[in-house]
Amino acid sequence: MESENKHTWRTRLHEIIYEADTPAGKLFDVVLLIAILASIILVMLESVSSFDDKYHNLLNIGEWIITVLFTIEYILRIVTVNKPIKYITSFYGIIDLLSTIPKYLSLIFVGTHALVALRALRLIRIFRILKLARYLGASNQLANAIKASRAKISVFLFAVLIASVIFGTIMYMVEGADSGFTNIPKSVYWCIVTMTTVGFGDIAPVTPLGQFIAAVIMIMGYGIIAVPTGIVSAEYTKASGSDKKVSDEEHKHLQTVVLNSQCCINCLAEKHQDDAIYCHKCGCKLHHD
Amino acid sequence: MESENKHTWRTRLHEIIYEADTPAGKLFDVVLLIAILASIILVMLESVSSFDDKYHNLLNIGEWIITVLFTIEYILRIVTVNKPIKYITSFYGIIDLLSTIPKYLSLIFVGTHALVALRALRLIRIFRILKLARYLGASNQLANAIKASRAKISVFLFAVLIASVIFGTIMYMVEGADSGFTNIPKSVYWCIVTMTTVGFGDIAPVTPLGQFIAAVIMIMGYGIIAVPTGIVSAEYTKASGSDKKVSDEEHKHLQTVVLNSQCCINCLAEKHQDDAIYCHKCGCKLHHD
Amino acid sequence: MESENKHTWRTRLHEIIYEADTPAGKLFDVVLLIAILASIILVMLESVSSFDDKYHNLLNIGEWIITVLFTIEYILRIVTVNKPIKYITSFYGIIDLLSTIPKYLSLIFVGTHALVALRALRLIRIFRILKLARYLGASNQLANAIKASRAKISVFLFAVLIASVIFGTIMYMVEGADSGFTNIPKSVYWCIVTMTTVGFGDIAPVTPLGQFIAAVIMIMGYGIIAVPTGIVSAEYTKASGSDKKVSDEEHKHLQTVVLNSQCCINCLAEKHQDDAIYCHKCGCKLHHD
Amino acid sequence: MESENKHTWRTRLHEIIYEADTPAGKLFDVVLLIAILASIILVMLESVSSFDDKYHNLLNIGEWIITVLFTIEYILRIVTVNKPIKYITSFYGIIDLLSTIPKYLSLIFVGTHALVALRALRLIRIFRILKLARYLGASNQLANAIKASRAKISVFLFAVLIASVIFGTIMYMVEGADSGFTNIPKSVYWCIVTMTTVGFGDIAPVTPLGQFIAAVIMIMGYGIIAVPTGIVSAEYTKASGSDKKVSDEEHKHLQTVVLNSQCCINCLAEKHQDDAIYCHKCGCKLHHD
Repeated sequence: MESENKHTWRTRLHEIIYEADTPAGKLFDVVLLIAILASIILVMLESVSSFDDKYHNLLNIGEWIITVLFTIEYILRIVTVNKPIKYITSFYGIIDLLSTIPKYLSLIFVGTHALVALRALRLIRIFRILKLARYLGASNQLANAIKASRAKISVFLFAVLIASVIFGTIMYMVEGADSGFTNIPKSVYWCIVTMTTVGFGDIAPVTPLGQFIAAVIMIMGYGIIAVPTGIVSAEYTKASGSDKKVSDEEHKHLQTVVLNSQCCINCLAEKHQDDAIYCHKCGCKLHHD
Repeated sequence: MESENKHTWRTRLHEIIYEADTPAGKLFDVVLLIAILASIILVMLESVSSFDDKYHNLLNIGEWIITVLFTIEYILRIVTVNKPIKYITSFYGIIDLLSTIPKYLSLIFVGTHALVALRALRLIRIFRILKLARYLGASNQLANAIKASRAKISVFLFAVLIASVIFGTIMYMVEGADSGFTNIPKSVYWCIVTMTTVGFGDIAPVTPLGQFIAAVIMIMGYGIIAVPTGIVSAEYTKASGSDKKVSDEEHKHLQTVVLNSQCCINCLAEKHQDDAIYCHKCGCKLHHD
Repeated sequence: MESENKHTWRTRLHEIIYEADTPAGKLFDVVLLIAILASIILVMLESVSSFDDKYHNLLNIGEWIITVLFTIEYILRIVTVNKPIKYITSFYGIIDLLSTIPKYLSLIFVGTHALVALRALRLIRIFRILKLARYLGASNQLANAIKASRAKISVFLFAVLIASVIFGTIMYMVEGADSGFTNIPKSVYWCIVTMTTVGFGDIAPVTPLGQFIAAVIMIMGYGIIAVPTGIVSAEYTKASGSDKKVSDEEHKHLQTVVLNSQCCINCLAEKHQDDAIYCHKCGCKLHHD
Repeated sequence: MESENKHTWRTRLHEIIYEADTPAGKLFDVVLLIAILASIILVMLESVSSFDDKYHNLLNIGEWIITVLFTIEYILRIVTVNKPIKYITSFYGIIDLLSTIPKYLSLIFVGTHALVALRALRLIRIFRILKLARYLGASNQLANAIKASRAKISVFLFAVLIASVIFGTIMYMVEGADSGFTNIPKSVYWCIVTMTTVGFGDIAPVTPLGQFIAAVIMIMGYGIIAVPTGIVSAEYTKASGSDKKVSDEEHKHLQTVVLNSQCCINCLAEKHQDDAIYCHKCGCKLHHD
């Protein structure tokens, strides 16, 4: 009887934390989203020394509140899942842990010499932002287009790298250390800056020959930017043009995933069909309201 | 009889101000267009101190002329419409008011301390330029393509933001305050500057590791610019490729809207069909020449 | 008899100068091309003061040689055409004249005070480069795609301008003269520099709010660059996809135009069919070898 | 008997060096790849003076090891081919030689005055990176799209150059030497920097008129970047859209080329069919395992 009661309690919590189709589940997600954004803003504000000097205590309190919140969330996520090891070793499990521990570690390493390492640890919390990616939702056309053109873009980027190494070396020979091209790695860096049309201007050619070669590099970079664009464009046209109906269905599917996302309490499998009764991975019964 | 005469007078004015299918209506539009452009140029010239010192009185007179013109236009627009509240609370009604009042407010706030606020008020007139958007005309393929790809581009821009926050934090840790990366918000700003291939160069990495990460960011930015381009390109191809005939009809429709734009005197509804006799929104009779 | 002989002489010269399907005509074109490129290089070298100081006389002689060559060409072009007024008032006729006279005018204005004006006159010769456009040849897919998307790109560029004026004014209010945003026109200039992702860095925001707005402008600029690209891409796909066969024929036609370009001696009409005997514009007989 | 034995030995070596379908052949390729990358990194590190000062001897030893390795490879490639002259005069043959000799030449030119020339010679080894291109593999869609649009992109780049020369000259006249536009070649260089949206900022217009023209150039550059992108995009869509099945076959073919790449021992011809017994170029028998 007790066990049954506990099971119900676990099941309800699982629904709230892992799913989003109950009012409580939606509320949980919104609170989590706000907490994530607040923690990112806190990490950012803390790095602004003029702000940190004034409101150090306030920031510290805010961080502790969020750390406690994330700790509770982390523990609940472990407790309400049948296979906790699977969650802990999953991508989001590691992100959840990494974004929670730094504040606790700051209690241990309070020595003067550990301050620099401590600072780096605090910044790990910035990775909490990756949790937001969870809300970007399911697989879509965009991801498919990028996936389909990934191999081709890699070849292209590799070609850009080879060109950068060769032109970087030529610029190093032509311009030399006086113009800021002090060594080949720096020249290659400059070449990438130029070819991608970023153009910081911290290093710039001064000799006529160097400026001529720079002009060639720029026009090349201007011309080859067309290549990855053309690839993604074509892949995306293929992906989206194939079937308009599919796109609509996918959209509907997306809504289903976001609003009625069932997550198996046993194996964490997602993307169950709307009318599914059993998990399609482990056969465990799914819990509806 | 008087009322009938007044009605005719109002109807004729309505035609001139809100429509463009009579010679007087066209003239009104051209005069308004010139007045808008003149007011923008006046605001700009006034901000150039060397110009303002010389021709302050001339600029002041010019501004008063345009302010009076816009005031008359604003009053006439209210008078000739049956439901003035609807116009006043509409987007263009607010723009019309906001671009007229600053000069009058400058008469009230003449104290020495109010000068800064006054300056800001004057600049509000720059929003008059949005009235020009009215002449950009009706909905077209372009707007549809942007509308169709808006959701996907938002997801994409959100991904760019997440990447900027993470890479900005890494650069802050690697480069530190000595290279200009004084805090995380500034580092994130630098990361956006770099990823969008703008590259001001006011902040630039100086350490080899920082330059290596910067190169990775640049090549990433260079690669992902292909994504929104591909999306718009594909959406636009779909939108324009679907039917050439539609495009021609739309073009004809555009001309109709611009040249014979009927605007209901009662409810301000636009885009009536060319041969419409009654307003399709309120049933009020439309006035043709 | 004399007149007949003269006619033959004129006809032969017309063939050499205006057409390219005889060995002499081809040679004339190649010589002209080299002369144009040489004149451009001379104008450029003359502006490099360190080079001009050393080789002033050499440059002067070179310029006179080219000026005489262009003068002869200009006179021959007038003489060998039946309607010289039509040639003189045509686009290339004006370019030919403008690129020839500056050197003669430099003989007239030798006074000390006229030196600055003289310098500007010399530079007019740079427009000779536009003659090269003549060799870019006939209308092609590319030009058609640009032509078809011209109207849409104009609307787009106009929207960019409106956004630049509004954001430029906001940046002027936020940053002020201390950061280099001394007046609105300069701020609008900065905004265009940023939105087009050029990013010189001569002016850059320094306040946190200014940098935040700049980030918004950059991401906007980065997003909207997709729009013209998408338009040209779609129009080009439509233009080139419609018929592959047409493209091949066009290519053949291009060759015909370049190699066998018949140009009517009477009315300067071009693009006659390969087997044409009479001009399709004025009915005048065409001269073949 | 001896000759037969030697033939077998040569044939086996040929398989290892020129092909990649035996375990030994694969190992050879991987070792070569690592050696190439190591040599590039060595050249780069050597140029960093702070690194070279510390580890000069270590770098020197590393270079000698790689030089000896490449020498052995070069000799074996000559020995195992029936027509060595063909290999030596081929593109990769020249690259192989050029990337091997600099270290030997450094033994000859050890005089103090030859140091600068020596440095340049050392850097030639950077071209070894081009050997990596060999592993980028066979012809693919990407290359075909670039090939198909090469002519059109050339016309486009030529148009950009003409525009740069004209606008560069105008900027030289407007801004003059005080703003850094000291001569026309430099102005043209600045114009290319601006038009390609690189924007170093080492030279930037300061006069209002100059900034206005710069804004026009930037918007032009921003608009015309769409042209090459559109071309490649359309060509690529055509190339990849024509047949999905072909793409799959091509992929399979690619694998075949990479994994079972047969290279004729007699004439170096590649791309034999998988089941080919005789070379399709010289009729010489191919050697399978």
